[in-house]
Amino acid sequence: MIIVLRPGATPAEAAAVVRFVEEAGYTAHRSDGQAQTVIGVVGALPTGLDLRPFEVLPGVARVLRITAPYKLAGRHFRADDTVIDLGGVVVGGREVVLMAGPCAVENRDQIRAVAASVKAAGAKVLRGGAFKPRSSPYSFQGLGQEGLELLRQAADEHGLKVISEVMDRSQVDAMADLVDIFQVGARNMQNFDLLRDLGHVARPVMLKRGLAATLEELLLAAEYVMSGGNHRVILCERGIRTFERATRNTLDISAIPVLKTLSHLPVVVDPSHATGVRDKVIPVARAAVAAGADGLLVEVHCDPDHALSDGAQSLFPDQFTTLARQTRAIAEVIGRSQAGG
Amino acid sequence: MIIVLRPGATPAEAAAVVRFVEEAGYTAHRSDGQAQTVIGVVGALPTGLDLRPFEVLPGVARVLRITAPYKLAGRHFRADDTVIDLGGVVVGGREVVLMAGPCAVENRDQIRAVAASVKAAGAKVLRGGAFKPRSSPYSFQGLGQEGLELLRQAADEHGLKVISEVMDRSQVDAMADLVDIFQVGARNMQNFDLLRDLGHVARPVMLKRGLAATLEELLLAAEYVMSGGNHRVILCERGIRTFERATRNTLDISAIPVLKTLSHLPVVVDPSHATGVRDKVIPVARAAVAAGADGLLVEVHCDPDHALSDGAQSLFPDQFTTLARQTRAIAEVIGRSQAGG
Amino acid sequence: MIIVLRPGATPAEAAAVVRFVEEAGYTAHRSDGQAQTVIGVVGALPTGLDLRPFEVLPGVARVLRITAPYKLAGRHFRADDTVIDLGGVVVGGREVVLMAGPCAVENRDQIRAVAASVKAAGAKVLRGGAFKPRSSPYSFQGLGQEGLELLRQAADEHGLKVISEVMDRSQVDAMADLVDIFQVGARNMQNFDLLRDLGHVARPVMLKRGLAATLEELLLAAEYVMSGGNHRVILCERGIRTFERATRNTLDISAIPVLKTLSHLPVVVDPSHATGVRDKVIPVARAAVAAGADGLLVEVHCDPDHALSDGAQSLFPDQFTTLARQTRAIAEVIGRSQAGG
Amino acid sequence: MIIVLRPGATPAEAAAVVRFVEEAGYTAHRSDGQAQTVIGVVGALPTGLDLRPFEVLPGVARVLRITAPYKLAGRHFRADDTVIDLGGVVVGGREVVLMAGPCAVENRDQIRAVAASVKAAGAKVLRGGAFKPRSSPYSFQGLGQEGLELLRQAADEHGLKVISEVMDRSQVDAMADLVDIFQVGARNMQNFDLLRDLGHVARPVMLKRGLAATLEELLLAAEYVMSGGNHRVILCERGIRTFERATRNTLDISAIPVLKTLSHLPVVVDPSHATGVRDKVIPVARAAVAAGADGLLVEVHCDPDHALSDGAQSLFPDQFTTLARQTRAIAEVIGRSQAGG
Repeated sequence: MIIVLRPGATPAEAAAVVRFVEEAGYTAHRSDGQAQTVIGVVGALPTGLDLRPFEVLPGVARVLRITAPYKLAGRHFRADDTVIDLGGVVVGGREVVLMAGPCAVENRDQIRAVAASVKAAGAKVLRGGAFKPRSSPYSFQGLGQEGLELLRQAADEHGLKVISEVMDRSQVDAMADLVDIFQVGARNMQNFDLLRDLGHVARPVMLKRGLAATLEELLLAAEYVMSGGNHRVILCERGIRTFERATRNTLDISAIPVLKTLSHLPVVVDPSHATGVRDKVIPVARAAVAAGADGLLVEVHCDPDHALSDGAQSLFPDQFTTLARQTRAIAEVIGRSQAGG
Repeated sequence: MIIVLRPGATPAEAAAVVRFVEEAGYTAHRSDGQAQTVIGVVGALPTGLDLRPFEVLPGVARVLRITAPYKLAGRHFRADDTVIDLGGVVVGGREVVLMAGPCAVENRDQIRAVAASVKAAGAKVLRGGAFKPRSSPYSFQGLGQEGLELLRQAADEHGLKVISEVMDRSQVDAMADLVDIFQVGARNMQNFDLLRDLGHVARPVMLKRGLAATLEELLLAAEYVMSGGNHRVILCERGIRTFERATRNTLDISAIPVLKTLSHLPVVVDPSHATGVRDKVIPVARAAVAAGADGLLVEVHCDPDHALSDGAQSLFPDQFTTLARQTRAIAEVIGRSQAGG
Repeated sequence: MIIVLRPGATPAEAAAVVRFVEEAGYTAHRSDGQAQTVIGVVGALPTGLDLRPFEVLPGVARVLRITAPYKLAGRHFRADDTVIDLGGVVVGGREVVLMAGPCAVENRDQIRAVAASVKAAGAKVLRGGAFKPRSSPYSFQGLGQEGLELLRQAADEHGLKVISEVMDRSQVDAMADLVDIFQVGARNMQNFDLLRDLGHVARPVMLKRGLAATLEELLLAAEYVMSGGNHRVILCERGIRTFERATRNTLDISAIPVLKTLSHLPVVVDPSHATGVRDKVIPVARAAVAAGADGLLVEVHCDPDHALSDGAQSLFPDQFTTLARQTRAIAEVIGRSQAGG
Repeated sequence: MIIVLRPGATPAEAAAVVRFVEEAGYTAHRSDGQAQTVIGVVGALPTGLDLRPFEVLPGVARVLRITAPYKLAGRHFRADDTVIDLGGVVVGGREVVLMAGPCAVENRDQIRAVAASVKAAGAKVLRGGAFKPRSSPYSFQGLGQEGLELLRQAADEHGLKVISEVMDRSQVDAMADLVDIFQVGARNMQNFDLLRDLGHVARPVMLKRGLAATLEELLLAAEYVMSGGNHRVILCERGIRTFERATRNTLDISAIPVLKTLSHLPVVVDPSHATGVRDKVIPVARAAVAAGADGLLVEVHCDPDHALSDGAQSLFPDQFTTLARQTRAIAEVIGRSQAGG
């Protein structure tokens, strides 16, 4: 950290800043330039340290971090890509992994039909919500534990892995037996209690980027899980909120190469939530693989018009087959592979 | 709701849209213009209805809501301002109400000192966090239940009311005995489980606007609480995330008159979180009262440089006294009042 | 246009709205529902009509447009894709067109070397700035007319077409003889005087999306050119400003399929300005072609470290060759082609 | 400027960075820490220097500016507030200055009536557009030079100063004789050619913040004018574009105290464009003065319903009188004054 004083800062102000730094447990290196005094702060700055207490000191012009605010999640901590083995299915390796399924598990027949269909197209992981956040008190609320069991059975029947969203700390233990990946939704990206609990489970965690979260904040959230001991974190770009409203959100396609530079963690993209409407999902999915995504999380439903939630953004099975065929060919263009065919 | 078909939409597409509308339980009124066919949808649309399933139907150009997506929270439902009586302290009436206190309750002496100081300046409600969201695993995590009790005692000693943030559903019952207002933080604005639970408590709820939430979404969150039976909701503007990073967030000052037009609920502003740094809090607080806010939520600490959280945005007691004196004078300019002085 | 009155609107208010509509030259169709009165406005609404004068009338709750605010640029006006033939090079057809070259023309040798290099990789159009917007008064300001001539000669030598940015109305006539496509920069997207002048030239115009412009506003800018008679407009997505600052701008990848749905005009993507740094350009370029872009506009420089402007985002020639090889393969995956190879 | 190398950067990379810095004309101070090497860059960095060429060098993790990118506009260059004397009317002093008038000058009677009315309410400067940016080719385009003359006459009759927008470099000379302040619109904030020309005129310049411009960019634009020798620049906050669409733009109220800290230049607020609708103008105007604005720029029209442009956001004369009375009282609360009463 470097503290830059204002040009006219007094010696007393400079001394007070040095004292404040030392009281906080760091060493201060003061360097008086012609125009400005600069105070280098040496010592181990904690993850997520708030710089503002330094910024508001009298005489201070600006405070600059030198090191990234996250550590375990950073490429500087680990040069090699993190590769997560789910038991036969590998996320973050050479292969692009498709994760697909309905927004919500509705009943046994529905989830079995979708599982069969996405498996045939090349998906390796079955997605499906059991606990749904209800934006209206009158909407379908998910099947809960029963939904999870139906999801697990359908996946097992077809040799698929399972990903499902955990909404609340109280669900963690029961879910751990039934899912292969815990998904944390965008609204929970900074639910630090939940992240801390997931730092102790023996399952990978997929963290969705919050609607207003910077990439640095996403990596800080990953750090939170990792600092508990669970280093198997998958990052998920799913669109951010901007002034443009032609799509539900704006997918930040550059986030893929940026995260790959800043971090060693796998990056998955959710084109369904990013766009919010079916006919934009396929082109955006292709773009994500072309930009280097390690996987896709796609909503598929056998009868989207009668889906109990998010039908408008769910693909028909044959659309998903087209998507998979195209993303497979694109994966090969950039030296990767994708199952199916 | 009005469904506008594309200019070249076929009769079969138009018929399918009508059928879809009727299957959803509404009545369709079709009107064929020279250029375009328009289908009016009549019937009681539920709060927060997702329009996208209609938008993705073949032949549809756009779907327009006619009525607001919220009802109980709307000015159209209730023309008179909602006035919330906390037992002597009234929010949403003629008087501007100051709510002040530390970010976190740290110990008995700290909270008593702040209580005395903000009371003297004219505050009517004491704020203080007991359960803190921890952005770093190593940060101070709040005193929990003990913090709430210290807060209550300090408030009672000085004839103040209490507001504190509820972080999780599990805290609701215990808090109900100790607080006068439940505060829901920006990150929880769309925690629908929590909102539903707060719809059943006998305490007013202050809802902070999410960092990326539109005013319509804030009113939908209020609707969620109100639909449970608790109509005593206070809205709180605390800044949104924009491209500008000179301040922590961008306070949306127009939100105050906009919310006053759209809704009958009281509107409070939090200048501390909106700006993130102490020297911007007072001018923004004055602006909020000038724009018509019903109250302010301000962080005050007797020793901000050693505060365990958010010290950089906490005012010194004498700064709060200045703030209160200025906002009182401004309140009077616009025909309102403010206690103290 | 539909004007929705507030539930409690008086008969006098409704009558005044009808009168206002009729004074403005439209026909008003009033329909009194149980809850609300709705007034349909019939007549030819001009492009870009401001709805606010209707919104502020007493008794009005909201005003909804039924038709898009643009006409000539809309898919509803022209169902087939616009295909622009530059004389052998076709934009908007089956082939993906690469446009590449330096940010600024610096001297004869530089532009000839780049032209040879991008031609070899498959580019069909040579880009290069002659008039540069100078963000600092001390920066390189472009070679002006001489730069244009060097650009033209270098292009002709290699059988390339020329695109260059027009900064001011005064440059239009002289440029018309030297360029094949006029480029309008993001800052000029709403320079209506310039757009009007370009509506009368016999050259295609590439319109770059403004940093804070919605897709609807981009289409309105295109309408402006088209209403002058020049229907050969190319749209260019080059990133929007959001809260994320890890990249210079946020490329809106969904803009490609959205524009293809709303409009018949070709869509080109500029991955260089969107990302601002060299190592993000290739993945984002691949993504753009995968999402359906009709072309790419890429900065290439033979010695980027000594480029007089924007060197940090310029590709080395061999990087551009890699880009072209990969985007060609991706184009083929989706049934398109790309020259070169 | 400080260049931070990546933890694993090689000695060769470090040496290359030092060489690049020296070739650019600066002195490099290398400091090898335990974890990371840091290279301090000493020398006079030009205004608006692009840091990206340093960021893309191999081995570089991040580049940090120490000094602000602007100089003349900065508070560090000039500690005292800039006070601009228009000849009896002073902007940036103790008095809050009201600038008011119609969006566009329409005819002699209109502008005389508005001038009389705003003068009576306490305005010191008459605003009015003569050259209008036309968002639709069919809209009213302003009276041009004749409009300026009518504006000048109406102002002189009532002892008012004149502010009007310059749209193009070609208008500067003719306008200089008729206006007291040149206004640069938000769309032209980065029209560097125009700014440079205004750096040489003997009239103050009011710079409106661009819709997507950071405060730093606004100050860089001011620097551009000032570097030409014209130090009489007024900054104007008029709202930025965010995801919230309940108002036309989002007024950044914190910009006022932030600009006052970063710069010595006067700050004026335009509540009319910020909100876009009449009934939000007064509360936002009060807020601006409460937050410390040095003046307001307000649209007033004697018959807004028949204004040829922007009628929806224009105040009726009696509304402006109310506004002026309230802002005068608020100005006094914070130790300032305002004419009229």
